[in-house]
Amino acid sequence: MSLPAPPTLARAVGNRVPFAEKLFEEIRSESVDIAGVTRPAWSARDQAAADILGDAAKALGLEVAFDAAGNLWCTLPGADRGAPRVLTGSHLDSVPTGGHFDGLAGAVAGLVALAAFRDLGVEPPCDLTAMGIRGEESVWYGIAYVGSRLAVGSLPRDDLDRLRRGDTGRTLAEHMAEVGIDVDALRASSQPTITQENTRAFLELHIEQGPVLVGEGLPVGIPTTIRGNVRFPYARCTGSYGHSGATPRAYREDALLAVVELVRDLDQYWIDQEAAGVPDTVFTVGKLYTDPKHHAMTKFPGRCDFTLNFGGTSEAFLDACRERTLARAAEIGAARRVSFDLGECVGSMPTHLDPGLRKLLADTADALEIPHREFATVGHDASIFARAGIPAAMVLVRNADGSHNPDEKMELADFAAGVQVLAAAMSSLAV
Amino acid sequence: MSLPAPPTLARAVGNRVPFAEKLFEEIRSESVDIAGVTRPAWSARDQAAADILGDAAKALGLEVAFDAAGNLWCTLPGADRGAPRVLTGSHLDSVPTGGHFDGLAGAVAGLVALAAFRDLGVEPPCDLTAMGIRGEESVWYGIAYVGSRLAVGSLPRDDLDRLRRGDTGRTLAEHMAEVGIDVDALRASSQPTITQENTRAFLELHIEQGPVLVGEGLPVGIPTTIRGNVRFPYARCTGSYGHSGATPRAYREDALLAVVELVRDLDQYWIDQEAAGVPDTVFTVGKLYTDPKHHAMTKFPGRCDFTLNFGGTSEAFLDACRERTLARAAEIGAARRVSFDLGECVGSMPTHLDPGLRKLLADTADALEIPHREFATVGHDASIFARAGIPAAMVLVRNADGSHNPDEKMELADFAAGVQVLAAAMSSLAV
Repeated sequence: MSLPAPPTLARAVGNRVPFAEKLFEEIRSESVDIAGVTRPAWSARDQAAADILGDAAKALGLEVAFDAAGNLWCTLPGADRGAPRVLTGSHLDSVPTGGHFDGLAGAVAGLVALAAFRDLGVEPPCDLTAMGIRGEESVWYGIAYVGSRLAVGSLPRDDLDRLRRGDTGRTLAEHMAEVGIDVDALRASSQPTITQENTRAFLELHIEQGPVLVGEGLPVGIPTTIRGNVRFPYARCTGSYGHSGATPRAYREDALLAVVELVRDLDQYWIDQEAAGVPDTVFTVGKLYTDPKHHAMTKFPGRCDFTLNFGGTSEAFLDACRERTLARAAEIGAARRVSFDLGECVGSMPTHLDPGLRKLLADTADALEIPHREFATVGHDASIFARAGIPAAMVLVRNADGSHNPDEKMELADFAAGVQVLAAAMSSLAV
Repeated sequence: MSLPAPPTLARAVGNRVPFAEKLFEEIRSESVDIAGVTRPAWSARDQAAADILGDAAKALGLEVAFDAAGNLWCTLPGADRGAPRVLTGSHLDSVPTGGHFDGLAGAVAGLVALAAFRDLGVEPPCDLTAMGIRGEESVWYGIAYVGSRLAVGSLPRDDLDRLRRGDTGRTLAEHMAEVGIDVDALRASSQPTITQENTRAFLELHIEQGPVLVGEGLPVGIPTTIRGNVRFPYARCTGSYGHSGATPRAYREDALLAVVELVRDLDQYWIDQEAAGVPDTVFTVGKLYTDPKHHAMTKFPGRCDFTLNFGGTSEAFLDACRERTLARAAEIGAARRVSFDLGECVGSMPTHLDPGLRKLLADTADALEIPHREFATVGHDASIFARAGIPAAMVLVRNADGSHNPDEKMELADFAAGVQVLAAAMSSLAV
């Protein structure tokens, strides 16, 4: 039969909500931790999630396979098996004691979409594939998007033996072998699994990790850009400790007040840039602390450690933040007789999501009368596909109380709305 | 014989430097800790210091006694035993792993001065007494100046059973009993040992705990005022944690940036007040930290704890600092959607040292050609005597690398200069 009209597909998706709920519960029972869930990347737990999804896919009559890196592939075969496929999916791993839906929602969404196509008896023109991606969270191996980088060929193969899991100290290769991956074959594989040639588009559904959709009362968001960032993860200011009462200002080398001056300056810069119309900027000092071994109310601090984290959708803004940080730290350090060591500056460039796909998602949501809006988002696997030249876009689903914590609250009705947009867009792309 | 001329007395003090050095070394050997020295208040260690000084005083033929609170009294009897005495001394206790000379220098100084009088065969018109005071450091029982407060009658007797030593959890009364003090007698004693009627003046020599004398190349300082302070030891700002990338500014409740705005404002207020000519002000944020259990580079902080500590010699400045803190915290909290709980505000009023005694000390130093200057200092036992109506003043001795740490560096030549000023002033006061 021909591809279904969006409302028909949306109804089929709606009928599959109990199926999704059952998958979420089965996987949760394999992932529970003292709080929330824990699914380390390439562990028995993300493997269990993959196996549960794979078994469900087999029961639907889909093709199920694991690629060389252990990413799960569930495919509804198209009429032309050689045509570029339409790909969806998200990650299976979670942070420790994290939320259940961060990543998993998108992996389940793909399977629900394929189930809806199956229920309607559709044979699409090209393959439709739902992926369960491994190793997105940077907490496990120090870098993010390991599974998608392996799939598009952008992870140096040396990293398999170089990256070590933070909590176990063992290498990525060791953990991969433990869940049955043929690491020698992976080391030897020189060709990316996913390329511009064999993939028409990558669409990722993910819970929103911020409060915008809750705040604006919208079930669905369509990201414009994955923000780039400039980060100083290990910044430090060093002065010298001294008696709070006995030391006049001219004799002080107060590390804390110097850091406070720097941070306040950068905070005000952010506020001013936003007021001047620079969109989608963020600035965060997540950690800032005097040294608990030495600090006291009656001593001015000789040391202060802190992090700086700027985000934005324009390279010009991020460059300006980095330059301002370096310049102001030097000035403030000299004026206050302290020394700033900002440490390594890391970051990523902004990744603009595909305008055509964004328009398709927005038009699809409009056709389905699902309220939505566009805004910038944060790093996701979609950025890896986009940087590999594959048109990529995302659907965010409303979610209260953030992510990376046990409090996340995605409602199934919002999940269904997101999958309806996703499935209808996949249908439009399948040519 | 009549009282000696200052230069004669100064030479006699100089001859007693080896005696001082021996006392410092003997007491150090009873006080050493893993770093620096530790002499808890009313412990075997400050008792050992008192006994070493007392034994040395007996060997000099001085009268030696302990008052009801366990403060050591070494007295060179005067011709008129009923005349108001001239009192000197400082404290015997130290902070944990602290410096050796903080307090002890002044206790030894009094004994060295009396030794010099003795060496010259002087019988003064009135008693000259050198005290070794107990319990000055607040680290032991949560409040400072316990020994001197007991001596002047300004400590409620209930505190003997209420105050507990931070490290042992046992009461002041229990620790006192353990070093042989008759606590029942102390509880029953209703009269202060030291009064305006029986004490002409209290002079305290102490190492400088700041860098001013080192910075200006002067051996001796003469404090004008003991700074008062306004302190918020347990201030906190509470917002909520959130994703650094996914949360636009309008949705943030960032506790850290709110605290940074408050601290920067107060820092600038201090700078501006100083520039406007308000003298002897200090401002310290000794502790400021995001919560190590929850903070991360990629989350804006939902909590920040900090201390605020203002010092000054004018009540108007201290009042203004307190008012500004309260007002700005309220404004910033409202603007940034966070809540400040500044906690208890504690502090003390400035204590002005006796102008007549300060002039005597300055004139004496001039006569001895010992370079000196006046400046404000921090809390010492002298403030307790001054608040009890006894004319009080201080001699500070140059000391590198601060106090309350093992690095303090008082040189014996500077100590001798301080004792020369002290002894000559005591001589002038003995009438």
